[in-house]
Formats: sequence, structure tokens, C-alpha cells
Amino acid sequence: SARERVPRSSSTSPSRSVGSAASTAKQAPSTFVHISEQPFTLANWHQHINWLNVVLIIIIPAAGCTAAVFTPLQPKTALLAFVYYILTGLSITAGYHRLWSHRAYSARLPLRILLAAFGGGAVEGSIRWWSAGHRVHHRFTDTDRDPYSARKGLLYSHMGWMVLKHNPKKSARGRVDITDLNADPVVRWQHKNYIAVLVTMAFLFPMAVAGLGWGDWKGGLVWAGIVRLTVVHHATFCVNSLAHWLGDQPFDDRRSPRDHFLTAIVTFGEGYHNFHHEFPSDYRNALKWYQYDPTKWVIWALKHVGLAYDLKTFSQNAIEQGLVQQKQKKLDKWRARLNWGVPLEQLPVMEFEEFQEQAKTRALVLIAGVVHDVANFIEQHPGGKALIQSGIGKDATAVFNGGVYDHSNAAHNLLATMRVGVIHGGMEVEVWKMAQRENKDSTLKSDSNNASIVRAGAQA
Amino acid sequence: SARERVPRSSSTSPSRSVGSAASTAKQAPSTFVHISEQPFTLANWHQHINWLNVVLIIIIPAAGCTAAVFTPLQPKTALLAFVYYILTGLSITAGYHRLWSHRAYSARLPLRILLAAFGGGAVEGSIRWWSAGHRVHHRFTDTDRDPYSARKGLLYSHMGWMVLKHNPKKSARGRVDITDLNADPVVRWQHKNYIAVLVTMAFLFPMAVAGLGWGDWKGGLVWAGIVRLTVVHHATFCVNSLAHWLGDQPFDDRRSPRDHFLTAIVTFGEGYHNFHHEFPSDYRNALKWYQYDPTKWVIWALKHVGLAYDLKTFSQNAIEQGLVQQKQKKLDKWRARLNWGVPLEQLPVMEFEEFQEQAKTRALVLIAGVVHDVANFIEQHPGGKALIQSGIGKDATAVFNGGVYDHSNAAHNLLATMRVGVIHGGMEVEVWKMAQRENKDSTLKSDSNNASIVRAGAQA
Ligand code: HEM
Ligand code: HEM
Ligand SMILES: [Fe+2]
Ligand SMILES: [Fe+2]
Ligand SMILES: [Fe+2]
Ligand SMILES: [Fe+2]
Repeated sequence: SARERVPRSSSTSPSRSVGSAASTAKQAPSTFVHISEQPFTLANWHQHINWLNVVLIIIIPAAGCTAAVFTPLQPKTALLAFVYYILTGLSITAGYHRLWSHRAYSARLPLRILLAAFGGGAVEGSIRWWSAGHRVHHRFTDTDRDPYSARKGLLYSHMGWMVLKHNPKKSARGRVDITDLNADPVVRWQHKNYIAVLVTMAFLFPMAVAGLGWGDWKGGLVWAGIVRLTVVHHATFCVNSLAHWLGDQPFDDRRSPRDHFLTAIVTFGEGYHNFHHEFPSDYRNALKWYQYDPTKWVIWALKHVGLAYDLKTFSQNAIEQGLVQQKQKKLDKWRARLNWGVPLEQLPVMEFEEFQEQAKTRALVLIAGVVHDVANFIEQHPGGKALIQSGIGKDATAVFNGGVYDHSNAAHNLLATMRVGVIHGGMEVEVWKMAQRENKDSTLKSDSNNASIVRAGAQA
Repeated sequence: SARERVPRSSSTSPSRSVGSAASTAKQAPSTFVHISEQPFTLANWHQHINWLNVVLIIIIPAAGCTAAVFTPLQPKTALLAFVYYILTGLSITAGYHRLWSHRAYSARLPLRILLAAFGGGAVEGSIRWWSAGHRVHHRFTDTDRDPYSARKGLLYSHMGWMVLKHNPKKSARGRVDITDLNADPVVRWQHKNYIAVLVTMAFLFPMAVAGLGWGDWKGGLVWAGIVRLTVVHHATFCVNSLAHWLGDQPFDDRRSPRDHFLTAIVTFGEGYHNFHHEFPSDYRNALKWYQYDPTKWVIWALKHVGLAYDLKTFSQNAIEQGLVQQKQKKLDKWRARLNWGVPLEQLPVMEFEEFQEQAKTRALVLIAGVVHDVANFIEQHPGGKALIQSGIGKDATAVFNGGVYDHSNAAHNLLATMRVGVIHGGMEVEVWKMAQRENKDSTLKSDSNNASIVRAGAQA
């Protein structure tokens, strides 16, 4: 009874290929509730499924891999499959992704044609469909509008999003600017002839190479065509799943993208994904020469043969700013977990005479305008009992800060945990604050948790 | 003609052994200028030298190692030498250093006697002399008063300080409290009988073991006595040289001590010296189980057999405070090297109408009360030319901060570098500052270089 509405075709509507929600459409139910908004039932579950995609990313691969068990792998065909895996995979990463989705560089016509052709052989949809969706992913990362949101689970972001149907009314595809894609004749041509490109490049071309080359038609189709396709699929799908799940977040931890060399190895270098989401139009994903980013190396090489130009990079300054900010954030969190003593402004204020009076019965030492109860520390004092006892009831600021012993940072930190009061008038406190500012080139500040930041060597 | 004054003997004066400036003393010159204050000349150079120390740390070792070439090494003697190297070396690190110099734990009488005896066999002076000097080293690290100041060079801190004579008047030994050492009968006894202890434990004992045990009197003296002594010397001297020269400074970079696992391997675990100078009375030098600190392991084991007790540690809190502060300091330095845009307070103030007027001829975009010149960025904008152009002459705050696209930290940082003015009245700026404080839990602050600290996710 539940049937779905035919989505109107628009310039940004999904293509007819993988990931399409427009294919296999039927009539909408009278209530106009899109199938994706209805619960799964025994009766309607098959309507939730995007069957064209299921054929392309599950059934054909499964059939091909089964056939492979009964298809001897000839060495030449194996080499072809491997080379074609690299070519079609790199056409997705260097072409679909870094060139067309992110404009990270510009490519001359012959290169664009090659990338469009081999990229079509990866069976991931047309450039226009793929890039528009990818821009939505960057623009709405981790939100409900993110087509492959990592919040919906590893499997969902890997394949689930393509297997299920989506309400085209809720798509954010209309919100991204793809005028540049529409302006590229190669993109337009590939989108228009996508089915032909797919069948030719994914299956016929590798079959023909192996067939005409060394008579292995079947091996060409099964191994260099379908098995190779399956590997390319899961390798590139990992950018949406693994890269949002495994690794570090050196630039921003508010969203899911992560950096990991394992992901990089699987994905032709797309594994430095925290960097990539922060600097999407940088033609690099990995910054260091020893990190694995073959897509970057290929783009760089294409530049040197004149096929690519205008390679974009974010400035080293912008990149280091990101690192510094994220490190600061982590440090703030760490600082917040530690005990830095009662904040000065929460301490009771006492007169100097009061301090002297109380010090007759309590082990109070005045340092930098702050009164400390050192009773529990006298026995442990690494400088000996005598010295610390000599400070009781006195202003031991000078003696503590170099007059007798220039105490370590650790000593200053310990001291802060013994605070019990501040001397009225605050003269000493003022002096100390001035000293902080003038002599030590440092001001007392609080961090994002309102905890005060004290640097090594800048304590009271 | 130049002769030196006889130093008065006092309770903290150097002992008669290694490192002593009191030995081989002659009459003072009529002008009372101590030899160490006089320039080296051909006529007086030999008076600058502490000849007793030269004999103990250079001549005997050199002679013994020469003799070793002609002394067959028997397996049993080799084993003895190795075991005795461990015993005498550990007696310095666990005994002289962590027990007596730093009171990092307490030891029962039998253990103290063993440590005093084997430590004597390392020929590094009496416990009292060694520990007093070491306390001076900690108290005056890197200053002129530091007996083995790393500022005077690697060789000086390794051996030079023992080879040269020093003016006892300038010694800071009187400034450290050694009442606890004088209160220990083992320390007193060892100091009084130091020559006997030295000769017995360094030479006679290993000779007797090998001689009575398997008839190798000569091998016992040469290998287990002198060669072993030479190795122990340089191993422990490395704490003063290598540990102030090689490695990281995770706790404090204002002074020379450094952490390095190579130093640790050479020195029975004393190589985490940056930690040690920060937390001297901690019985540990290395914190992690996988770091090499056999001295710590031995003390821990001695505790479990009841010979050691009251092992002191600084709290994890104090230790992490030190790490956080030093990391903050490094981050401040890094931040200071980057361009964060013109500080808001240095920007010219303009009226909103003025901004609108100027935006007719310049690509000015108003975001969060700040005017930005985006002319050079329009072409590069990863979100496309159209969107950024649509902000020219307008207040694009909402659109920039999520209304259209929730820009990354990198985008905010780039934006800051395009600042050219602030809108008068600052209403927007106020709003933004409030937002910083209230919504994002963060306040704008400046670091010790007066550069403002902006965390990931907390930009305008
Ligand atoms: C009241 C709180 C005090 C605290 C928390 C404190 C803490 C410490 C700590 C942790 C050390 C070990 C070395 C270091 O980390 O720098 C130390 C050593 C020392 N302290 Fe204090 N101290 C206090 C008061 C004093 C006072 C009032 C004096 C002198 C009048 C003093 C004199 C020394 C000396 C001379 C040492 C060197 C010990 C050595 O290395 O032999 N301390 N103190
Ligand atoms: C005026 C200074 C601006 C700067 C410095 C700037 C910077 C950037 C940067 C660096 C990106 C790459 C993605 C990211 O890092 O988040 C980006 C993307 C984007 N920007 Fe801007 N932007 C500016 C203004 C605007 C304005 C005014 C709008 C909208 C009215 C806008 C809309 C977008 C969109 C939609 C994207 C997403 C592009 C995509 O992923 O397809 N930007 N911007
Ligand atoms: Fe992503
Ligand atoms: Fe991307
Ligand atoms: Fe040291
Ligand atoms: Fe020490």
C-alpha cells in the first residue's frame, strides 16, 4: 500500500547511478509520506531499498567474486587488474574528490577526460552527483543533512547510505553551489552519458584489454572488471567510514574526521581526514613527505608533466594555527582536571596582625601576600624542617623566591594547594602581580574553563 | 711563588677523598689570593690541580686499565667485576644520591651499612661530602655556586670540577642543611674512616673475593677492583654531565637538566634528570614502568623485603601540573611565531555607513563587528565566488557563522588575517565577546607574549 512519490528531476538531483534515490521510483502514497519516513515493516522493507544500488555495489560484486573462484587468474590479467585498480581508484581520489569536489587544483582537458573515464569505471556515480553530495558532506558534516553522516554508524557511512532510499525533499544538494561543475563540459558529458561510461569503463574496457591482448575475456571481466571494482569500492568507501572513526584529531575535535595512516594506506592517501576537513581545498591530505599520500604525489607529478596546474595549499601559518589551537584546547582540558589550589579570590582576607596572632598556634607562612598552612608539609619539606619552620609567622616571600632558595615550579604548585587566606590591603599581592607582569613577562590569565593558567616559571 | 691558603676544617668542609679541595694544601700567598683565582701559568699550573683526585680518578684507573691488558680475565672474575659494578654503582644512586642526598626514602641500619660500604668502594668521597655537594648542586643549579655547573662545559661537569682546586671561601657548602646527615651514625662513621673504607672496599675486598675464592688475586684487584671502578666512575659522573646536556625538558626549561633514556641506561636510571631536579625527593626518576630506572626498582624491592620504608613520591597532581605548565610555555612560543592578524585594538574604527560606502569600491565584508578586505580571497574561496561576493557591503556574521556555512577554524583564522577595521559602537563586537563568554565557554585572553589565545572553535 505504501508507495513513494516520483521526485522531480532538477539539475542537482541524483544521477541514475550508484547512490541515486531517484531510480526505481514508484507512485507516491496518497498521504505523500516518503517511504524513508515510514517504519520498516515486513510488507514495505523492499521499498526502503535502493535496488539499483544494491545491484551495483552488492549483487554484481558478490556474483563477480563468486565467479572469480572458478576463473583462473592469469598473471597478465592479475597485473591488469592491479594497474586498473590503481587507475580507477586514483581517478576517484585525484579526480572526483580533490579536483572536482574541492577544486584543489586545475586540470587540462586530456587529464579531465581520463579522470572522468576511469572514474566512471569505479562505479560511484557521475562526477556531478558525487561531487555535489561530497560538498554537502563537508558543509553539513555529522549533521542530519550529511549524506554519509558518521553519527549513523560505521556501516551506514560505508555503504548503508547507498543501500537505503532517502527523501529527496530533505536533501541538502540544492544548498551547494555547483556552477563550476556545470561549467565543465567533461562533467556535463560524463553525467549525460553516465550509464554508457559505467558499462564501458567498469566492465567492457578491462574485458577487451585482456581479451584482445592475451585472449582472457572471462578473466578480464571477472578479475580486472568486477573483483577490481569491489576492491576500489571498499577502498574509497573507507574515506566515509574509517576516516571518520579511526585515529587522531590534531586540528579539530568538534567533528568526527580523523587522521590515521592505516586509512591512508587503504584509500590512496585520503586517510589524513581531520586535516582534509579543515583544509578541504588543499591538494594534499598528508603534509609530511614520509606520510602515505600517493594521490598527492600523482597530482604533483601531473603538474610536472604539464597536465595539472594551480595546485592549492593552505599556508603553513594557517595549518600551524590549527595545530596550536587544538593543542591549547587539549591542554585546557588537562589543566581543568588538576588541583591548582583555592583561587585567590575565594580566600578569606585577614589583617597582617591577625596572621601573626594565628601563626602562634598554627603553622602559617606568608608568601607573596598569601597565607599558607604548611603544618602537614613541615616533615616532608625537602629543604629540611628547620628552614620551613623559620618562616612560620613571617613574610617568607623573599626567602622562598631566591633569597634562600629559588624554589622549583613544583614547590610553587604545592604551595598553592596550602593557601588558606590573603592579607588585607593586598599590597604584597599587587607587588607580586606587578612582578608577574613586568619581570617575568607573564600575566595571570584564565583558560576556557575559567581556571587560571600558570606557566612554568611564572608562579607566585 | 703562588701558594694557597690552608682552608679551615669545618663540619661541611670537603672530606679527604675524591673531590676534596682541602687535600695537598700548601701555604697561602702573602696576598691571600687563592690559587683558583690566579691565572694558569707555566709556573703555577700544577698548583691548580687537585693531585689526590687526579690520582684517584685518572692515574689509578689509567694504570689499572693498562695492567688489565696484561691480566687474563677469568670468567669468575668477570662475573665478580660485573656484580660488583652493579653493587657499587647502585650504592651511589640508591644510597648516596636518593637516600642520603635527597631523603627520598628511609633505610634500616643493615641496608645503610651496606650502602655506605659498597658506596665507599665507588671512590667518590664520603657520603657526607658527596651529599652536601649534591645539595649545593640542586640548590644552585647552573649558577657559579653549582659545584658541577653544566654551564662550564661537558668535560668540566663530568670530571674537570674534581681535577681543579676551588676556593673553599667561595664554596656554598655552608649554605645547605646537613643536620640529618650528621645525625646518622653510619654517615658519621663512614666519613671518619673514609680512607680505610675506600681502600678496603674499592681494592682489597674484590681482590680477596677472587683470591680466596678461585686464586685470582691479581685479576680481582685489576678487573673487579680498578677496571670496575673506572666504569662506575664514568657511569655516575654522567649524571652531572650527560644528564644536563642530552634530551628533553618536559618539566622546566629554565635550567639545564634533561631527560634521556640513553643517560638512564648508563646511570642505573638517573637519566630522567629534568624530572629529578623538579621532584628531587621523589624516590623515582622515571615514572613509567617501561622507562629504565633500576635504582627505583631496587628501592621498591628493598621496601618489600623490609629494608627500606617511607618511600616518598610527589603527587600525580603536582607532576602533571609541571607537565601542563611546560607544555603551555612551549605552545606560547609556537603561537608567538604565527600571524594571527592585526589585533582588534590596533584597527581603525569606522562607522557602519562608512563601511557601506567604501564597500562600493573595495571588497569589504563585515563579520562580528570587524571589517575584512576579502579582495585577494574571492577567487580562492573554497565555497565559491558567488557566496563570498554576496557578503560584500553587508554584515555577513550570521551567514559566516552557520547561517549558510559553519566555517572551520581555519576559515576563522584566515578571516582574521584580512581584518582592516572595526565598526564604531562595537555593538557587534560586544555581542561576539558575549557569545565567546557565554555560549562557547571561553574568554579571550592573551598569553605570556601578550598574543591573544584563541582555541579551536572559539574564534570570532
Ligand atoms: C612553605 C612552603 C614551602 C614549600 C611548599 C616548599 C617546597 C619545597 C620543595 C618541593 C623543595 C624541593 C626542591 C624543589 O622542588 O625546589 C624544597 C626545597 C627547599 N626549600 Fe622549600 N618549601 C617551602 C618553604 C621553604 C622555606 C620557607 C624555605 C627557607 C626559608 C625553604 C627552603 C628550601 C631549601 C633550602 C630547599 C633545598 C633543599 C635541597 O635541595 O637540599 N623552603 N622546598
Ligand atoms: C569572508 C571571508 C571568508 C572566508 C575567509 C571563507 C573561508 C572559507 C574556507 C577556508 C572554506 C573551506 C571550508 C572550510 O574551511 O570551512 C570555505 C567554505 C565555504 N564558505 Fe567561506 N569564507 C568566507 C566567506 C564566506 C561567505 C560570506 C559565505 C556565504 C555567504 C561563505 C560560504 C562558504 C561555503 C558554503 C563553503 C563550503 C564550501 C564547500 O565545502 O563546498 N564563505 N570558506
Ligand atoms: Fe569526510
Ligand atoms: Fe573531501
Ligand atoms: Fe643535576
Ligand atoms: Fe639529585
